[in-house]
Amino acid sequence: MKSIPDHLLQLLGKSVDQIETPALVIDLDAMDRNIQRMADFTRKHRVRWRPHAKLHKSADIALLLEQAGAIGHCVQKLSEAEILAAHGVNNLYISNEIIAPTKLRRVAQLAQDLDARGGRLAIAVDSEVGIELLARALREVTSPGIIDVFVELDVGQGRCGVPPGEAAVALAQAVAEHPPLRFAGLQAYHGRAQHFRTGAERRQAIAQVIEEVTHTRDLIVAAGLPVHLITGSGTGTLIHEAASGVYGELQAGSFLFMDADYARNERDPAQPAFEHALFIKSQVTSANDKHAVCDAGHKSHAIESGLPTVHSLNGESNEAEAADEASTLRFANGGDEHGILHPGSTGGWLPALGSTIWLIPGHCDPTINLHDHMIGVRGGLEGGTVESIVRVDARGALR
Amino acid sequence: MKSIPDHLLQLLGKSVDQIETPALVIDLDAMDRNIQRMADFTRKHRVRWRPHAKLHKSADIALLLEQAGAIGHCVQKLSEAEILAAHGVNNLYISNEIIAPTKLRRVAQLAQDLDARGGRLAIAVDSEVGIELLARALREVTSPGIIDVFVELDVGQGRCGVPPGEAAVALAQAVAEHPPLRFAGLQAYHGRAQHFRTGAERRQAIAQVIEEVTHTRDLIVAAGLPVHLITGSGTGTLIHEAASGVYGELQAGSFLFMDADYARNERDPAQPAFEHALFIKSQVTSANDKHAVCDAGHKSHAIESGLPTVHSLNGESNEAEAADEASTLRFANGGDEHGILHPGSTGGWLPALGSTIWLIPGHCDPTINLHDHMIGVRGGLEGGTVESIVRVDARGALR
Repeated sequence: MKSIPDHLLQLLGKSVDQIETPALVIDLDAMDRNIQRMADFTRKHRVRWRPHAKLHKSADIALLLEQAGAIGHCVQKLSEAEILAAHGVNNLYISNEIIAPTKLRRVAQLAQDLDARGGRLAIAVDSEVGIELLARALREVTSPGIIDVFVELDVGQGRCGVPPGEAAVALAQAVAEHPPLRFAGLQAYHGRAQHFRTGAERRQAIAQVIEEVTHTRDLIVAAGLPVHLITGSGTGTLIHEAASGVYGELQAGSFLFMDADYARNERDPAQPAFEHALFIKSQVTSANDKHAVCDAGHKSHAIESGLPTVHSLNGESNEAEAADEASTLRFANGGDEHGILHPGSTGGWLPALGSTIWLIPGHCDPTINLHDHMIGVRGGLEGGTVESIVRVDARGALR
Repeated sequence: MKSIPDHLLQLLGKSVDQIETPALVIDLDAMDRNIQRMADFTRKHRVRWRPHAKLHKSADIALLLEQAGAIGHCVQKLSEAEILAAHGVNNLYISNEIIAPTKLRRVAQLAQDLDARGGRLAIAVDSEVGIELLARALREVTSPGIIDVFVELDVGQGRCGVPPGEAAVALAQAVAEHPPLRFAGLQAYHGRAQHFRTGAERRQAIAQVIEEVTHTRDLIVAAGLPVHLITGSGTGTLIHEAASGVYGELQAGSFLFMDADYARNERDPAQPAFEHALFIKSQVTSANDKHAVCDAGHKSHAIESGLPTVHSLNGESNEAEAADEASTLRFANGGDEHGILHPGSTGGWLPALGSTIWLIPGHCDPTINLHDHMIGVRGGLEGGTVESIVRVDARGALR
């Protein structure tokens, strides 16, 4: 287990003002509300919930989500699964393809370890070669137990997976012919649709996905194989998969923190009212009459899905109206280590040297992957108290 | 000191084929040639060389560069300086502004520690407030020694720094009036000009910088203060600052590894022939008749300055002509964990499942910051041997 440095432990119980910048800060109250909203939503729709841990990469958060009703966790990398398992997470699904025989030996070992403690490993496949290599690796361990294998469909992402239809039937049969693999169902995630901006576009995209997935499921059943579970979905489209009657499990993870990219989606009224719960605390370190410069650049937040937005502002150097004014600021790319803050209008308000700036990351997953720790705050970003230091246990876990 | 995990130590002496993917790999032969070229260049131009460690964040590489002639290292963050100092680096320059009093206390402590062991800390300023806060913090330690303070000019980056001219004179005087600060000279770096694509644009931009810097230097000297050093420059423009007779020091760091973004610059004949020396080893994990998918996405390489390019290819699953064919592949964004490889032409060659793909990162600095270790290979990417595991000591050092 990674240790937490003393200078972070010393923040516990202290005011949010004492957090040095730039830092990744969780609004724990907002996060708890998001978890409750998701738990209520999945209960109402009688759908299982296996959130994607590639977002937070934290065992503590994974276990918190299980307490709220999550039945396990998705990961994208084997090493994420290994690290979470080492921290007590028992049900893990690698929703991705693995081909390297050295990694597949680790998959087999992890499947055996989880099975021995009453957990379960699952994995996705999209090729006959992948299925054969996986089965071979599992036959080499003593008691692999059951490994759940999902056949991945490409339902619009244009990345991994086979097309819906006969290709998936052939792979399902190949899985069933390779004990100890267990054909568990279909992986069907349309990642791009999460960020289609209008509700109508998202509804239409997922309606087509559901049609294709249903057709594929029926073909596999007709071929004599039960399809136990169809799994997928994300925060942008979950209302559609949840209501479909076809998807049995939601993988959405981003609801936990939300981000500036999701905030750009037109909100569907049926969507739970998830809030921003992850912020970058930053400080103005240079200022002139045209712009201010803060100490957070793209080594502190990922910008591939858009720049961060400015949330609100506190700190001793600010005017009373600062919180309102801050939301007019425009964050511009200042490189690896800086952000440039432009006023909302010519001659408009700019924060003074030393001011605190709170940023909403453009995309939470790769932002969290830049940090070894997140700082959990209770009681709000202004006046709140540091309650926890959350380790990003699987930060940098790529293999 | 961060420990190196066993599975990486076990790679030492092994074939490059055994490196699991995705991994950040240094071609040590190419890196050594780049260092030699830079050392020769700076000797020829009789200019000091203080490369930016924000690129590599590694104490071992910093010490290697000192052996080759570097007189110290620039960093962008205090915590980078602290970490490199803890690993034996003695001459450090924080080429950036610091405002937070808690951090300035750490600056003062580090200045004292480096001075006590015969080293030196330097820092940049761009405001009277910053100068006063820095001086106050230094007066609170017992024996701060000398701290070199550079006044930062904005010479076209449009970020930190004061305009060339009278504003800089006022700051130089403010530094001189605040012992134990020592006015050391001017920080003048035009970051954007590094990537102006034509040699003519870069020459023109730096000619103007040199004019402004010279004018500012002359004003400060006329006001009675010596300007010991003008420091700045990067890999894209270093031939101009080196030949200027005005700049006494080059901060270029990227020459060490180069990247796809620098490769897009028109090469100036006077520029040393720096080579790509940093690569992402990746594997094809999914493939169909339209594209192949590899296991490196933007959690393994930064894409804010452009996507990676495909370098060459090896591995057991490849055809003999693969190395040539690979260079026709087009890497497309596949999200956090995947890259999508499109053929160079309709129906063109695509790598098979399991193939190795070598990528050249779009931008090295933030790519390295995603990794805890780099794997040093001797003897080439095809058939070479793992010689070293290089710790990215200051990975994630943001504060």
